[in-house]
Amino acid sequence: MTETTINGITPEQQQVEQDLVDTVVASFENTADPRLKQLMQSLTRHLHAFIREVRLTETEWNQAIEFLTAAGHITDDKRQEFILLSDVLGASMQTIAVNNETIGNATEATVFGPFFTETAPEIAHGGDIAGGATGQPCWVEGTVTDTHGNPVPNARIEVWEADDDGFYDVQYTDGRVAGRAHLYTDENGNYSFWGLTPTPYPIPHDGPVGKMLEATGRSPVRASHLHFMVTAQNLRTLVTHIFVDGDPQIEIGDSVFGVKDSLIKTFEQQPAGTPTPNGRQLDGTWARTRFDIVLAPAGT
Amino acid sequence: MTETTINGITPEQQQVEQDLVDTVVASFENTADPRLKQLMQSLTRHLHAFIREVRLTETEWNQAIEFLTAAGHITDDKRQEFILLSDVLGASMQTIAVNNETIGNATEATVFGPFFTETAPEIAHGGDIAGGATGQPCWVEGTVTDTHGNPVPNARIEVWEADDDGFYDVQYTDGRVAGRAHLYTDENGNYSFWGLTPTPYPIPHDGPVGKMLEATGRSPVRASHLHFMVTAQNLRTLVTHIFVDGDPQIEIGDSVFGVKDSLIKTFEQQPAGTPTPNGRQLDGTWARTRFDIVLAPAGT
Repeated sequence: MTETTINGITPEQQQVEQDLVDTVVASFENTADPRLKQLMQSLTRHLHAFIREVRLTETEWNQAIEFLTAAGHITDDKRQEFILLSDVLGASMQTIAVNNETIGNATEATVFGPFFTETAPEIAHGGDIAGGATGQPCWVEGTVTDTHGNPVPNARIEVWEADDDGFYDVQYTDGRVAGRAHLYTDENGNYSFWGLTPTPYPIPHDGPVGKMLEATGRSPVRASHLHFMVTAQNLRTLVTHIFVDGDPQIEIGDSVFGVKDSLIKTFEQQPAGTPTPNGRQLDGTWARTRFDIVLAPAGT
Repeated sequence: MTETTINGITPEQQQVEQDLVDTVVASFENTADPRLKQLMQSLTRHLHAFIREVRLTETEWNQAIEFLTAAGHITDDKRQEFILLSDVLGASMQTIAVNNETIGNATEATVFGPFFTETAPEIAHGGDIAGGATGQPCWVEGTVTDTHGNPVPNARIEVWEADDDGFYDVQYTDGRVAGRAHLYTDENGNYSFWGLTPTPYPIPHDGPVGKMLEATGRSPVRASHLHFMVTAQNLRTLVTHIFVDGDPQIEIGDSVFGVKDSLIKTFEQQPAGTPTPNGRQLDGTWARTRFDIVLAPAGT
């Protein structure tokens, strides 16, 4: 029996509330899968702790139901409001953090985001991922190694990014595939491709998540970034981005909390006419950056 | 700086995770509405505490996103999976508990549920709410008083219930209005109507919430009940049910945790031919019950 009045809540009332928590936790006692049981019981405890701590009103509960309903209704095969919600609450990044403890010098992970697709074309080294997406061409090169410095041949590298209007291909309705590709490291673990110099863009903010950001005075803008997912046998899959050193949004705050210092890279601006690394003819300026990727062992 | 390894989590890793929580909490610092700021910061802390405690895997995170997406897509103007989810996690009942601290002898509240509609017809005293819904007729009578025992005239009583197939009218696709009505207390605070003897029924369990209940070995069945919502000037609105003494589901466990001992009422079975209180002619058996309602003061 709770014996003291806390924040004006009588011991009797605290007991009513705690008894309910205990009853709900006990209702999951017969769950066959022990992990599912752990998840549901822990979720119950934390959810009830939230409701009790803030003394959630019935009006606020209704608003929460309406928020989730609106999120569900705007979500389709191209728009994923629940991932956006998880992202802006830092829940995606915390899940990444929990599962990707930094192993020695391995490259740090960051959020996956909602815009990856399985349909990206394969390109050769030095190929162009733009596929018509607009933006400043950017030469990206690097190596993939393990934590002992051994090169990783045949690592699969998926890259994807927004165009300079701030949209991924899947956000257009014309079915284009642009600003995404995959390629494989060579026998020395090297890779290179032409991407686009990343620019800042807002996450989709015409839905309930956008309204929440506005009501809380938060910017929907993501720090400029280029997505990577790197997979190789016997090594931990890496989902990450690289960010652009000097992007002011890094100071303002990335809307999904994805920035890590180790992932901020120098993008060197090249004057128009500067010869390109693979002889590509370009009329205007271009940029170049280097991203050396270190994969942790699988199962870590 | 956290200094000890807890459950195999190094101090460095704990710090990474805590820094992320602090960053997300700080991102809400500019929220204009202080209550919204409190809600978002508390939600962030509890959500992250859950993820960190269970060490949520990326696969489980994906399953959570898929669950919410499926819940969103099955939800329409007649099916509300997010309310069902809140109900089976006890979150609805906890919100009720937090906002309806028992005031003296006032009638206890319980869950609202997803089946109330604004369209129920008005009936006179002794009228029938069935409107074609099948089930054993049940005479329900009582008084509405305040906590000092003063009768409350003109209190609006909304009642609604499932038919004996376990379905509310809105779960049928033919647009029927049945098993629901509203009426007003007379000058002495009395009310009476014909309802149906409540029978147990499962909450809608052909969606993601039903799958979760199945996976966790829980019954989707609700203890038999009749819904009430009672509103009157200067008194706290009461949302509650009455339950049927002897219903075995009370022992098995009500799927939404709505049962309170004070709300379990005796439903007296009447043999066929027993004269009814208002001269209604019935061929078969019927039942009767009494529910005296005590409303707490408004603002309590």
